[in-house]
Amino acid sequence: MNAPTLKFEQLGLIGCGLMGGSFALALKKAGLVKRVVGYSKSPSTTERARQMGVIDIEAPSALLAVSGADLVLLAVPVSATEATFKAIRHLLSKDTLVMDVGSTKRDVIDAARRVLKDQVGVFVPAHPIAGKELAGVENADPELYYGRQVILTPIERTEPVQLAKATRLWTALGCQVQTMAPEAHDAAYAAVSHLPHMIAFALMNAIADQEHGKEFLSLAGPGFRDFTRIAASDPSVWRDILVSNREELIAQSRLFQRALRAFEAAIADGNPDAVEALVDKASQARSRWRMNANKPHG
Amino acid sequence: MNAPTLKFEQLGLIGCGLMGGSFALALKKAGLVKRVVGYSKSPSTTERARQMGVIDIEAPSALLAVSGADLVLLAVPVSATEATFKAIRHLLSKDTLVMDVGSTKRDVIDAARRVLKDQVGVFVPAHPIAGKELAGVENADPELYYGRQVILTPIERTEPVQLAKATRLWTALGCQVQTMAPEAHDAAYAAVSHLPHMIAFALMNAIADQEHGKEFLSLAGPGFRDFTRIAASDPSVWRDILVSNREELIAQSRLFQRALRAFEAAIADGNPDAVEALVDKASQARSRWRMNANKPHG
Repeated sequence: MNAPTLKFEQLGLIGCGLMGGSFALALKKAGLVKRVVGYSKSPSTTERARQMGVIDIEAPSALLAVSGADLVLLAVPVSATEATFKAIRHLLSKDTLVMDVGSTKRDVIDAARRVLKDQVGVFVPAHPIAGKELAGVENADPELYYGRQVILTPIERTEPVQLAKATRLWTALGCQVQTMAPEAHDAAYAAVSHLPHMIAFALMNAIADQEHGKEFLSLAGPGFRDFTRIAASDPSVWRDILVSNREELIAQSRLFQRALRAFEAAIADGNPDAVEALVDKASQARSRWRMNANKPHG
Repeated sequence: MNAPTLKFEQLGLIGCGLMGGSFALALKKAGLVKRVVGYSKSPSTTERARQMGVIDIEAPSALLAVSGADLVLLAVPVSATEATFKAIRHLLSKDTLVMDVGSTKRDVIDAARRVLKDQVGVFVPAHPIAGKELAGVENADPELYYGRQVILTPIERTEPVQLAKATRLWTALGCQVQTMAPEAHDAAYAAVSHLPHMIAFALMNAIADQEHGKEFLSLAGPGFRDFTRIAASDPSVWRDILVSNREELIAQSRLFQRALRAFEAAIADGNPDAVEALVDKASQARSRWRMNANKPHG
């Protein structure tokens, strides 16, 4: 099959932070876009993005960023999705591919259905499994998405041509694209991302609230560094994710606490064999795990 | 003060795994030792250590590794400490510096007092804050300790000359040496190391035990990778640490679970402001944190 060359005239970027800025840079680096028109809620962010060459033109509103765009990316905290769709819907053409990068998908899709109505087919919900704890356009990186998984969660009304375009786009950026149902996505990421974030946040707070917390922290080493890296994540982004996916998250948290109590019981009993069996199981599961193990091309 | 050159005739290494092997390699690289005589419970480990040049001579017993040594390192799971002291005490001279590398200190010191009795002053309890999830002599690395903190927890009977020797030795390996009370050590590391390990183990088990656990794991990304790295740690080492420091560990686990429930409550209430305040506190604490912030030389 000879697909037409993948090339966009204009990316309308709404949200010029780490995720959005990195997407713009990656697209430019791959030669996939002619111009990037960007909008951020804070004018100083938009200006900084232009100064850095992340975007080419500053738009004074989300609507104007979308005007003339054949590709639109929403890179805003998930709770801002509905308001953003409302702001841009009047200038969305039926040929425009619209995506987001949110870590939860059901709430984003609900917002899209409510606002876009008949136009919802242009929206391809996307979640690139990438990020870093340093937010902001200053940390935008054209390689952020390279080699990562991207989960697309189309609904029955998603237009096949837009889904195909989205798949080609992320593949061209070096990503492994996987399609799954929004519900399955939210359940899986509650377990492997949202819960680990909540745990890391809670651990930091538990230590910080102790009398000797500061001293304890000064003694922490590389294990602690890696374990808590995600605790430095952006508060407004993670506020929205945790609240939005609360049912799955709390269900996963309960399973985790049950597993934690199994450790506590074995430890309190002073039962080394039981403790070793629990650690061994975890250690084997983690040693076997490989990131992107289901990479389509080996 | 003109201290005599720090140089040892013979390191008696008991336990030729990751920690012990890395110590021998670091000592050799720094030119601080003439020969390394090593013993491991498993003869094949000892042989492998010699083949790799980690040790120079294989000893058929812990006692024979110590024979003629002016420096002894115990690098065994902490529960093996007492038996090891019993095996070597008859050949310990009063000039020999004896150290361990255990992650808990009160239990190790109790074992030393019980077995070494009058000789306990030669023992300087040590905990280098270093490691990796790949155990075994194959992963020994002369740089493992470089730039890391080392906590020494002397007791009132520890000989000052041995403590000074230990401090010079670790400093010569590029470590930042800090002295603290064994109780303070065990409380601090329950919070910043033992609890994070137990949490990472419990999370792996909670996911692995679910119906869709395997699928969930295949979707996990770099946040999960770093968060769970410590879950791959050595089961026999961590069995001992968790059991040995159980009181402090369970106390810390309770504080953590209280912090976790604060998140769950705010999330279940659908209260984004409360969730953001909790995340913000954690994110700020983690963003401010620097490893080795109390590095003595800047």
